[in-house]
Amino acid sequence: MDQSSLILIHNASQLLTLAGGPQRGQRLGELNLIQDGAVAIAEGKVLATGRSAAMLARYPEASTFDAQGHVVLPGLVDPHTHLVWAGDRANEFEMRLQGRSYLEIMAAGGGIVSTVNATRAASAEDLIEQTSERIWQAFRHGTTTAEVKTGYGLELSTELKQLDVILALNARGPASLVPTFLGAHAIPAEYADRPDAYVDLVCEGMLPEVKKWWRARTQRQPLPFVDVFCEEGAFDLAQSRRILETASALGFPLKIHADEFKNLGGAALAASLGAASADHLVRTSDADIEVLANSNTVAVALPATPFGLNEPDYTPAQKIIAANGLLALASDTNPGTAWGESMQFILALACRKLGLTPAQAIAAATINAAAALNLADRIGSLEPNKQADLLILNVSDYRQLGYRFGTNLVSYVVKQGRIYPVT
Amino acid sequence: MDQSSLILIHNASQLLTLAGGPQRGQRLGELNLIQDGAVAIAEGKVLATGRSAAMLARYPEASTFDAQGHVVLPGLVDPHTHLVWAGDRANEFEMRLQGRSYLEIMAAGGGIVSTVNATRAASAEDLIEQTSERIWQAFRHGTTTAEVKTGYGLELSTELKQLDVILALNARGPASLVPTFLGAHAIPAEYADRPDAYVDLVCEGMLPEVKKWWRARTQRQPLPFVDVFCEEGAFDLAQSRRILETASALGFPLKIHADEFKNLGGAALAASLGAASADHLVRTSDADIEVLANSNTVAVALPATPFGLNEPDYTPAQKIIAANGLLALASDTNPGTAWGESMQFILALACRKLGLTPAQAIAAATINAAAALNLADRIGSLEPNKQADLLILNVSDYRQLGYRFGTNLVSYVVKQGRIYPVT
Repeated sequence: MDQSSLILIHNASQLLTLAGGPQRGQRLGELNLIQDGAVAIAEGKVLATGRSAAMLARYPEASTFDAQGHVVLPGLVDPHTHLVWAGDRANEFEMRLQGRSYLEIMAAGGGIVSTVNATRAASAEDLIEQTSERIWQAFRHGTTTAEVKTGYGLELSTELKQLDVILALNARGPASLVPTFLGAHAIPAEYADRPDAYVDLVCEGMLPEVKKWWRARTQRQPLPFVDVFCEEGAFDLAQSRRILETASALGFPLKIHADEFKNLGGAALAASLGAASADHLVRTSDADIEVLANSNTVAVALPATPFGLNEPDYTPAQKIIAANGLLALASDTNPGTAWGESMQFILALACRKLGLTPAQAIAAATINAAAALNLADRIGSLEPNKQADLLILNVSDYRQLGYRFGTNLVSYVVKQGRIYPVT
Repeated sequence: MDQSSLILIHNASQLLTLAGGPQRGQRLGELNLIQDGAVAIAEGKVLATGRSAAMLARYPEASTFDAQGHVVLPGLVDPHTHLVWAGDRANEFEMRLQGRSYLEIMAAGGGIVSTVNATRAASAEDLIEQTSERIWQAFRHGTTTAEVKTGYGLELSTELKQLDVILALNARGPASLVPTFLGAHAIPAEYADRPDAYVDLVCEGMLPEVKKWWRARTQRQPLPFVDVFCEEGAFDLAQSRRILETASALGFPLKIHADEFKNLGGAALAASLGAASADHLVRTSDADIEVLANSNTVAVALPATPFGLNEPDYTPAQKIIAANGLLALASDTNPGTAWGESMQFILALACRKLGLTPAQAIAAATINAAAALNLADRIGSLEPNKQADLLILNVSDYRQLGYRFGTNLVSYVVKQGRIYPVT
């Protein structure tokens, strides 16, 4: 091969390859670390990894990039976000701190309905501009792939507008975006007194149309995920099952918001339907943790949500690990409960609130997060033929991730071989 | 006056002046906000503030800088940090997460003793380089003035080296640094069995020498603060009193670390001695909160410390406000319990963990934080003749501070009139 098109990032104090596939249970945290490491990149993909000296000898013609004794690791993968929205809910945040009640906040136009109204009213161009800033914020903090959900339309046209925005921003870059259709995010106000009619609409009026639209819009791309918010006040277990089974029959891969505030059984439902992930899981019963852990459904913890809401309880990550489950981390970035795009902050929370070590948190936010998107064969680790998505930090010990908080330790984000400096 | 040397920052959606001096009790949170505001700057100081249209008419020859409809507010003041140290404690952080005991961590060389050893061994140049990165990190996140403590020497020569580093970094910029001598940070290992002998050393061997050295080194600068860690396992109330009274007699202004883990009475001691601030205050009794609130000593809450340690209890800020106290916020940045330079993250924690509104948190991190450094006449608000230290955010509603977390909302830091872009 012509080595002149090859980039060799060398002199990494620690090259975390995360090689070896998704990490279950006690295996979580296997970094497969190469000291004084190097990674060779060709055509946007990883060609090889190894010790710097050996790699420099093996690829003498490559363009070299000196990591200057800093940590190199796979780009972070954020497998649960709601990044496409219009407006903000700062007013609601302030009202909560002033001790106003939920009803007062609703009366002042707060809650998800305010984001739904703003998102319905926004043009696709406006949504692209507002969301693009958030994507860049995430990217600068190390997220090279993010899942992004719809769910602020709750009507077909706006849900499709959100999907269109996700596709447009994925094409624009810099981060790769993985779309999820979340028409069943909440019961819209116009269906408040007849939620089953909204479930009918999702199943009969939306899912088939989304599939048709998707095929026409993207031609060859695999279908997006379909997700449902299974929760008291949103969709109950039977409604969630109906939506997910309908989606599955149409060929959509599945996700679920389960057991955030109440244990409705969504985690076990996800496992039984072969969903890629079940997310939140704060109230999941021990029995359902067992069911989940015995499946290939990834358990996605979202510690920014209790942090954002100042709730005391977090996902029982240690139980998931003990049950031999697949644990991943995500940001849940959204305007209501958790506006924080930085996956580095999620690692800091995970160490403190879920009791993960830095190594476990890193694995949960790379290879296991990729598994939550059915993408563990393409991203989440630095192995031959995988996407060359990686980070060069400004520190030489990976444990600084998690230990330090509130700032950005990334110096360079490398996305499919292209190097972006980060100040 | 020659207007050509004048800078006019205009078109601020909200100009938060924080005018009117430190804010006690229920007054906390008075932003004195000017909509569509402008600030005129001359010779590094604020000349005037007002509505953009009026200011543009008043200073037609000024150089203009368009804030583009974003928030402008005083630079954040961080009145409690330990920014000068060598090494890190990532190993200790990981050991704690692995469930290792305090004794195991000590046996592995962890705890403050490891930072003391590394700081004693480091050259002044090394300390300057390592600390400078942290100062820039703080500055990029909006801290224009930071207090910085010694206390990782616990012997005269290293304590003076730390003071020298603080003076050198203050001269280098970009942030202003306010020095504090904290020789009484811990009982050094070599005095473990005779703590009173170390108190003797601080009072007789260190404080007079620090004064002499300071006078020779700085000529006209006011003396640094003297601080003591009044806590079980560190300095008891009688030892703390002796150190602070000795310092006061020598002319040093005072600070204290009080009631972080146990209520030893340090807060009331601070009030009785006229200290500028009493810091931590997690375990302060209701009676001592009253004593503190009835004094001019500022109560400094450090929410990153319980966050960093994952402890459940925070400073009872609402009680301090109810008692009509002066409340400020600081980062406590240090390698053991809280490595986080961003005061924006402290605001996000303060809203959630102390129940402050964004406006209250901003006042506590600007004008009241300045008061904790005896600098409320020079910094902490945008009023004529005060230093032109201010931030231009990339948002148009100040409540985004606190609401959002883990990222950086600052676009430009203006330090004594000089404009620094922040990516």
